[in-house]
Amino acid sequence: MSPKELPPSKNLVFGRTFSDHMLRIRWTEATGWQAPSIEPFATINLSPGATVLHYAQSLFEGMKAYRHDNGTVTMFRPDMNMKRMNTSAQRLALPAFDGNALLECIKELISLDRQWIPKEPGHSLYIRPTLIGTNGTLGVAPPSEALLFVITSPVGPYYPRGFKPVPLHGTTEYIRAAPGGTGAYKLAANYAPGVVAQKSAAKQGYAQNLWLHGPEHWLTEVGTMNLFAVIKDKDGITELITPPLDGMILPGVTRDSVLALARNHVSGVKRLEGLPDVIRVSERPINMGEIIQSSKEGRLIELFGTGTAAVVTPVDKIGYNGGDVIIPTGKDGMGPVSKPLWTELVGIQTGDIQSDWNYVVAQ
Amino acid sequence: MSPKELPPSKNLVFGRTFSDHMLRIRWTEATGWQAPSIEPFATINLSPGATVLHYAQSLFEGMKAYRHDNGTVTMFRPDMNMKRMNTSAQRLALPAFDGNALLECIKELISLDRQWIPKEPGHSLYIRPTLIGTNGTLGVAPPSEALLFVITSPVGPYYPRGFKPVPLHGTTEYIRAAPGGTGAYKLAANYAPGVVAQKSAAKQGYAQNLWLHGPEHWLTEVGTMNLFAVIKDKDGITELITPPLDGMILPGVTRDSVLALARNHVSGVKRLEGLPDVIRVSERPINMGEIIQSSKEGRLIELFGTGTAAVVTPVDKIGYNGGDVIIPTGKDGMGPVSKPLWTELVGIQTGDIQSDWNYVVAQ
Repeated sequence: MSPKELPPSKNLVFGRTFSDHMLRIRWTEATGWQAPSIEPFATINLSPGATVLHYAQSLFEGMKAYRHDNGTVTMFRPDMNMKRMNTSAQRLALPAFDGNALLECIKELISLDRQWIPKEPGHSLYIRPTLIGTNGTLGVAPPSEALLFVITSPVGPYYPRGFKPVPLHGTTEYIRAAPGGTGAYKLAANYAPGVVAQKSAAKQGYAQNLWLHGPEHWLTEVGTMNLFAVIKDKDGITELITPPLDGMILPGVTRDSVLALARNHVSGVKRLEGLPDVIRVSERPINMGEIIQSSKEGRLIELFGTGTAAVVTPVDKIGYNGGDVIIPTGKDGMGPVSKPLWTELVGIQTGDIQSDWNYVVAQ
Repeated sequence: MSPKELPPSKNLVFGRTFSDHMLRIRWTEATGWQAPSIEPFATINLSPGATVLHYAQSLFEGMKAYRHDNGTVTMFRPDMNMKRMNTSAQRLALPAFDGNALLECIKELISLDRQWIPKEPGHSLYIRPTLIGTNGTLGVAPPSEALLFVITSPVGPYYPRGFKPVPLHGTTEYIRAAPGGTGAYKLAANYAPGVVAQKSAAKQGYAQNLWLHGPEHWLTEVGTMNLFAVIKDKDGITELITPPLDGMILPGVTRDSVLALARNHVSGVKRLEGLPDVIRVSERPINMGEIIQSSKEGRLIELFGTGTAAVVTPVDKIGYNGGDVIIPTGKDGMGPVSKPLWTELVGIQTGDIQSDWNYVVAQ
């Protein structure tokens, strides 16, 4: 196969362009994992009875490879993704795998296709490992055959025209997750059902869903991102709040990193410029009642989503109970807490800041 | 392609053998539905970025074609499946289609492969229409390309050794559905997450999950079947109870048929032999408290699941709160209410009883 033409970076749309190669690793119940194989990007040929098509036996991960100015290529905390991918596999009774070995294969794939990592600032190579059940029998059961594949896609900055805060629709008529369900796992099954909810929000003028849980309207996630709120507590201390990992919340890598950076700032391990000296870092439930109350009392500082695709997404309002709750935003979109955290995160990812969170793919 | 060898009917395992042909109909946002095509059964070739693989953009139906003793081939109420399939498509923002036109295509497919319908009593041809999003882009959005395909599979009786009542595990640690979710739609996304719950029930000695909802432990469904309980009310009247279509319950064709047969019996439109003269037919919530209370008072008559695959599945116990609630069963498995209803249903499906529920595929 002759390599494809690389599109100009400015024309990149998330997940539409794929690089020349892909990784495939087959598994069968009888033989276990077969030898991994890096092949030209090509169709996946499935039995029309394949369980992935009928029962959503599928899970995935999302990661990025960044090209630093000095040419080094790194990934950001990929061990977290490998661990989560195995947790997702367990939830679906799909086979477990050696995360380190898979990471080595992904490293090879990226090295081979490294010309596909765009050079422009804010650009990266998006990496999508996927594990699907492939046996062609219609019983609902653990699969006897599976395929793990990895594709990669060059992507530009999620917000090419800078941070424009997004309005959210406080959603109660649809759910993303519920206790005992699969919200804490990165399963295919969690995504398709959200499309009509997003369409309904868009129709009402909102960009994304703010998924509210239960009669108390607990905040859970934003679209396909984790969620953070910043409130000035009554004792005057700035509190950075994100919902706890109670079984409904995806344990996001960006979520974990934001918490770690904030805690390192508080403990003095690494102070971040611009961040308030004292922050209360909380993994705790927060509901719309508290958002509205703190907003009324002028104590609501900001609200933002976090995820691999966009890193940080500021929010400027929440449509709720027929009205809009206005959320303060900074002059370039991000607020006083998200901005220094985002700056540090992106500094690490682009290689400007040294960190052992970077996993070197190629020098 | 040369036709495959038909396996002996006694060796059939549900959904493992497929007939010679399949139906394929492509859809694109730009052109709409393309011409349907009946082709040899062969692999489906997808972009590795196809949304069905990553986000579970998939829904399906299950129907059966029965061969009567006189050679006539019929399907059972397929209009219900076509209607439900369109409802599922709408829930996933997949394209709507003309149910009558699809049914005509399925009729042609079955006629072509009619030698695949086993002749033995209790056997049938299982029909699996499936609609999947196929566009190869990683955005979570309504698909711009889709494929509707139909495969068929000869199947034997679900319980080849007669009706053996199954023990259920009263499941609260996993959920099948929740308000605002997708339990009322036949989506791929509803199935894979149930596999670990079934495995966990099996490990404890139970065949299937009895999905209990909320702190009140409302009974919802059994494995992948709808659920009926029969209780003698305090006024001495036999009550046939199934949970209402409140958004968590799949509107099953067998469920609807059981309700219709029972109501026709009560109203005198068609009396069924063996059924109590007076029955209270209720679509209403029922919880474990009521099951236990009626069991203690000797008023619990039976409990059974309904679905296309097994038609009626009697239950003999429910593992709950560390003990077992024993459910009465009849001497051949089914109880006094399910038995006459099952007899009528199967009589219609096999052509022994005339009914406008039968849709003639071939004479």
